[in-house]
Amino acid sequence: MNLTLGEANRMVQAAITEANRIGIRLSVSVCDAGGHLLAFNRMEGAIFISAVAAQGKAFGAVGFGRDSSAIPADSPVIQAIMATQGGKIIPAQGALVIVKDGETVGAIGGSGGTAQQDEDCVRVGLAAL
Amino acid sequence: MNLTLGEANRMVQAAITEANRIGIRLSVSVCDAGGHLLAFNRMEGAIFISAVAAQGKAFGAVGFGRDSSAIPADSPVIQAIMATQGGKIIPAQGALVIVKDGETVGAIGGSGGTAQQDEDCVRVGLAAL
Amino acid sequence: MNLTLGEANRMVQAAITEANRIGIRLSVSVCDAGGHLLAFNRMEGAIFISAVAAQGKAFGAVGFGRDSSAIPADSPVIQAIMATQGGKIIPAQGALVIVKDGETVGAIGGSGGTAQQDEDCVRVGLAAL
Amino acid sequence: MNLTLGEANRMVQAAITEANRIGIRLSVSVCDAGGHLLAFNRMEGAIFISAVAAQGKAFGAVGFGRDSSAIPADSPVIQAIMATQGGKIIPAQGALVIVKDGETVGAIGGSGGTAQQDEDCVRVGLAAL
Repeated sequence: MNLTLGEANRMVQAAITEANRIGIRLSVSVCDAGGHLLAFNRMEGAIFISAVAAQGKAFGAVGFGRDSSAIPADSPVIQAIMATQGGKIIPAQGALVIVKDGETVGAIGGSGGTAQQDEDCVRVGLAAL
Repeated sequence: MNLTLGEANRMVQAAITEANRIGIRLSVSVCDAGGHLLAFNRMEGAIFISAVAAQGKAFGAVGFGRDSSAIPADSPVIQAIMATQGGKIIPAQGALVIVKDGETVGAIGGSGGTAQQDEDCVRVGLAAL
Repeated sequence: MNLTLGEANRMVQAAITEANRIGIRLSVSVCDAGGHLLAFNRMEGAIFISAVAAQGKAFGAVGFGRDSSAIPADSPVIQAIMATQGGKIIPAQGALVIVKDGETVGAIGGSGGTAQQDEDCVRVGLAAL
Repeated sequence: MNLTLGEANRMVQAAITEANRIGIRLSVSVCDAGGHLLAFNRMEGAIFISAVAAQGKAFGAVGFGRDSSAIPADSPVIQAIMATQGGKIIPAQGALVIVKDGETVGAIGGSGGTAQQDEDCVRVGLAAL
């Protein structure tokens, strides 16, 4: 049970469309169950650090098996775990796990707006699965 | 003079279509003139390290301002420069610089097939600009 | 829409002139939209670490798309993002984003005085754009 | 006996003028006797990695006390020394030490053309001291 590239792209596009609708400049990242990148888009004018943040939020979400807003960023345990991953985890709101038939198959992460806007956009993306 | 997201996605899709046609499983990455990610796709079944390699080839191409096959990977100078970039440069064939109106605006990198196949696919992508 | 070298040098010189006027020893750095260095000056007697700090503030400003005083340095999220950038971000007051025709095209960062003096000097630099 | 900022800028400008004359896009870096950056310029269109390379060549020249073309890049000893400096040394032709009254006070490094062109340009810069 894996995500297809078509599904990943459909989710990315839906999140981008929503970002356009609400007027923010977003990066959107979809990774698989192993945390590895499947599909990504950065809108014109989105800050370049959003490319890293969107990927890091999605990686963290799938790594911890929960939406990234539920990762306690200032926990020493979380920070110790982050230190093992070479900077790949960004423990911030804006990524959601992707579940198919009860199985976590990846995550979708956004960055570029407020953390709440990022999550709102990727939630629209998730709904396009 | 920048790449638009639409242009980046069109190049990625063209490279993916070519990879499908020749029967390989490809990751394709497009970055901007600063080396920052714009668009990315990894086909089902492509090894996950290809996600990193496609990005690193594109980063190296735009960083050095030349197709990645022209970066002498075993030069001590190139290795010294790579050491300054935190592992972001992969000095291997398979990425091409993207030029608009005579100005380098980014690069497209592929990974997943042989190095020659990777370059062939991203060349088809480049032609879709 | 890019910064020209002439514009970058004019901004650097204006900031240096202001630092001389208020009697501090400043490093000033201007980077482009991708965070890459365009122009730099360090005044005689400015501590050498100011060279690194001025560059890191400017990189952080353009990476986050906001003046560096607005980057919350003690946020675990910011620290996680900093960890992805190999030490290139200094999240301290003293850098301002550079906007041309509504588009962020770079940043100017200063270091050597107090954080407020650094910002005051680069603001004079920015006005010379 | 130190370089002044005025001297550093004059050298940078002379090297840039020479690069314009011979038709290449150059980064030029001047550092002090401690290897710390004093003045820097990157021409429009110069590849972004040239910013790093110009600084690294100048750092290496002053660190080893010789023009960078005389640093044997593939020596294991040189490589061991480079490993102690966090990637700051680029052991390639294109940087010259700056001597005042018999004392080494810094170095000027260039990158963006061929290694010989880089050295030719910074030699013109050096002559403007």
